[in-house]
Amino acid sequence: MKTYRYEQNPLITPKDVKPFHEGFDVIGAFNAGVAVYGDEILMLLRVAERPISPDPDLVLAPVFNPDRGAVDLVEIRKDDVRYDFSDPRVIRDVTVTSGFAYLTSLSYIRIARSRDGRHFTVDDQPFVYPSQQLESFGIEDPRVTQIGDTYYIYFSAVSPVGIGESMVSTKDFVSVVHHGMIFGPDNKDVLIFPEKVNGKYYALHRPTVKSIGYPEIWIAESDNLLYWGNHKHLAGLREGMWDSGRIGGGAVPFRTEKGWLELYHGATKEHRYCMGALLLDLDDPSKVIARSGVPVLEPVADYERNGFFGDVVFSCGAIVEGDTVKMYYGVADTSMACAELSLQEILDSLVYL
Amino acid sequence: MKTYRYEQNPLITPKDVKPFHEGFDVIGAFNAGVAVYGDEILMLLRVAERPISPDPDLVLAPVFNPDRGAVDLVEIRKDDVRYDFSDPRVIRDVTVTSGFAYLTSLSYIRIARSRDGRHFTVDDQPFVYPSQQLESFGIEDPRVTQIGDTYYIYFSAVSPVGIGESMVSTKDFVSVVHHGMIFGPDNKDVLIFPEKVNGKYYALHRPTVKSIGYPEIWIAESDNLLYWGNHKHLAGLREGMWDSGRIGGGAVPFRTEKGWLELYHGATKEHRYCMGALLLDLDDPSKVIARSGVPVLEPVADYERNGFFGDVVFSCGAIVEGDTVKMYYGVADTSMACAELSLQEILDSLVYL
Repeated sequence: MKTYRYEQNPLITPKDVKPFHEGFDVIGAFNAGVAVYGDEILMLLRVAERPISPDPDLVLAPVFNPDRGAVDLVEIRKDDVRYDFSDPRVIRDVTVTSGFAYLTSLSYIRIARSRDGRHFTVDDQPFVYPSQQLESFGIEDPRVTQIGDTYYIYFSAVSPVGIGESMVSTKDFVSVVHHGMIFGPDNKDVLIFPEKVNGKYYALHRPTVKSIGYPEIWIAESDNLLYWGNHKHLAGLREGMWDSGRIGGGAVPFRTEKGWLELYHGATKEHRYCMGALLLDLDDPSKVIARSGVPVLEPVADYERNGFFGDVVFSCGAIVEGDTVKMYYGVADTSMACAELSLQEILDSLVYL
Repeated sequence: MKTYRYEQNPLITPKDVKPFHEGFDVIGAFNAGVAVYGDEILMLLRVAERPISPDPDLVLAPVFNPDRGAVDLVEIRKDDVRYDFSDPRVIRDVTVTSGFAYLTSLSYIRIARSRDGRHFTVDDQPFVYPSQQLESFGIEDPRVTQIGDTYYIYFSAVSPVGIGESMVSTKDFVSVVHHGMIFGPDNKDVLIFPEKVNGKYYALHRPTVKSIGYPEIWIAESDNLLYWGNHKHLAGLREGMWDSGRIGGGAVPFRTEKGWLELYHGATKEHRYCMGALLLDLDDPSKVIARSGVPVLEPVADYERNGFFGDVVFSCGAIVEGDTVKMYYGVADTSMACAELSLQEILDSLVYL
């Protein structure tokens, strides 16, 4: 498959983003949702900021405090044997077998604007910032679904009680309406279809299960975008393949003649993240018609292989124009890039079930 | 607090239930949802049946096969080092840190009927039986909410892809309408309120989270009982107390003058299960007004302390008549019992926040 990575890649890096918090570094501007608004292409960046520690033996964990409307810093000594610092993204409690105790950075959503889709200017201020207890560890990996003149923006809301998916909406990318948590924990990678199918809205979602099962893609339906049900398992891991460790929805699904095309991410157990495609029945998106045997995009460029968390390509949004799929994607949990793919080549590359 | 345990306890034991599957033992008739229908009190028993192994070195794991409409038996040797058999309820994969690979029994719902609430007769056939892939490991712990002349029955649907909460409804306890999975995995202990509050239906639910957080009680809202959203964290674990290990909704919440009363279960980390109460705001059930400092019921009777999984009292339904709360509850993951409590005494015993 021909893949045209923009010469401008990476399009946005942490250096292009001024920290919002005093005394913090921007360590990531990545995993952006994408919207076309007026004559602009908007990237809704996940901006991750990390507190600068005055002491190399001390890690500062940022926690948004809704009562103060500001970020508290929790001090943890690096020689504290209760904690494990081996993953740069999180601080783990060694007495707990899964999950994390704190994040090392706080994420929020900031807009980058462009007329040509290649040269972006980042807004000075956050667009959506944590505002309540369920977002005290930050908000991550936004996606945007446009329905009529309303843009629905949904993202992982992270806090000590769990990770769920919350939603806001806007018509102007200035003011937002908050709709609360639409998928309870443990869930992320929600993707709302851009139109009703047979009278129902549909969304992909990715439960992180503990009792039994794996991090796989499910589908749910709704009649108002706020309340979701009729959950069904959609697609699972594939042993020995590029998506054997975890999968989750990526870009907002879009309609093709053959079916709904979903560009999803898959990772190996070694955390190498690639992008592939699922083709879903036009009249019943809970039916998988075809799926990528090999990825449509793999981390091979230097900016995809190296960064805060390397070997990651992770798309949260694409723009489709005729046969051209402009897939925007986060690289190495650090920056944003874009690659153009041929829709026909993607469809031809799939393995039909 | 005065607790009147019925002299007839346990009201139903596995011996009272004829196996539905040939070659199986009934090992549990417990955790029943409760309904008043006509002049009868119905217990919707969770009946657990275990395949009888012809070989003491072999464990048989029952799996419902929706294509055949019958149960397959997976044979696992007890000396297979990949598996851990230490918990009688499950077979664990030793390479996975949490959760289980198979269940040792298959559960479904069967009705027991009574005129006096003390003497019950068990139906010969299952009432709700697994019918699809998401129920291949069985259906567990039903609750019943009556709204008008419709009874909504919801239960844990267990399969290799996860545990979620599915729902059926009935008007006559003969025919049922299936409504699919209303809470996706990993979730159980759903409790639907019996009436709308300020125009919305509410439900408690209990996500089992992996990334971060604990098994705690959340609340969600709906306008049609099928689709749920606006998830909020409601009540957490309490270190050093009777509900320090896990909590979950128990009986269907009921209206009192002081607020919605929820009889919930709490367990220690050592898996001792007690029942306590939460009092929720009448106009906004997402607000906790008061909570039990000590349990309203603890496992002390012999039938509560000893059984398939001992030291467990676990209510899925109660009948309230004036000041009398008839709390039906599963004991030791084996049988059913009932205790009468005074509503006023429960309310007086709570710690107001």
